[in-house]
Amino acid sequence: MDKPSLDLSILTRGQDGTSYKRGDVIFNAGDAVAEMFVVKSGSVAIEVDDDHVETVEAGDVFGEMALIDGSPRSARAVAASDCEVVAVGEKQFLFMVEETPYFALTVLRTLVRRLRSTNAR
Amino acid sequence: MDKPSLDLSILTRGQDGTSYKRGDVIFNAGDAVAEMFVVKSGSVAIEVDDDHVETVEAGDVFGEMALIDGSPRSARAVAASDCEVVAVGEKQFLFMVEETPYFALTVLRTLVRRLRSTNAR
Repeated sequence: MDKPSLDLSILTRGQDGTSYKRGDVIFNAGDAVAEMFVVKSGSVAIEVDDDHVETVEAGDVFGEMALIDGSPRSARAVAASDCEVVAVGEKQFLFMVEETPYFALTVLRTLVRRLRSTNAR
Repeated sequence: MDKPSLDLSILTRGQDGTSYKRGDVIFNAGDAVAEMFVVKSGSVAIEVDDDHVETVEAGDVFGEMALIDGSPRSARAVAASDCEVVAVGEKQFLFMVEETPYFALTVLRTLVRRLRSTNAR
């Protein structure tokens, strides 16, 4: 498939994010909050059972699984550096999926990448 | 998130599928074919390294990962019963994502379900 890509930082433009210091926990496994996050600056570590799973950089998303299926967080997100993240709620997510197909493709690719790297472990 | 759902069998309506006998291999890990499949009837087993991962039933999709990221198949698909499946190529997939947001949501949910069940193993 061609690689139409969307820099998801457009989602963060003009929006104030929440700032975290390196080491701060952004969410914990088991948390029940239906929103995902776009990294505006810095980077975020995703951990499952204290194993490092992935580092998410500026312009990329994390926390999309709980938003998509409404289940509690399956992983922990920790600021890997001082960072700023912008929350995307359900309404904005559905709006983006409806209005910009490439947004859906970008999130689909993110999920496939995670599934492949999980299978590889 | 609300659960708008789309019975993906609309993708198979009026289309002849390919028929397989129970035990037939539909694709193997490593195959490089950019299409996914919708199960029209019967069921399909997804296997990774001879481990059974999931059974896909009528109306559900499989093989979407290779379509989305263009990588070779990461799993093997075997007819779990006599079955009929309909291939969905890249163009039709992009068309569906663009025209029907719920299609994208349905595939997103499928991927999240697989990722959670993979994490659980």
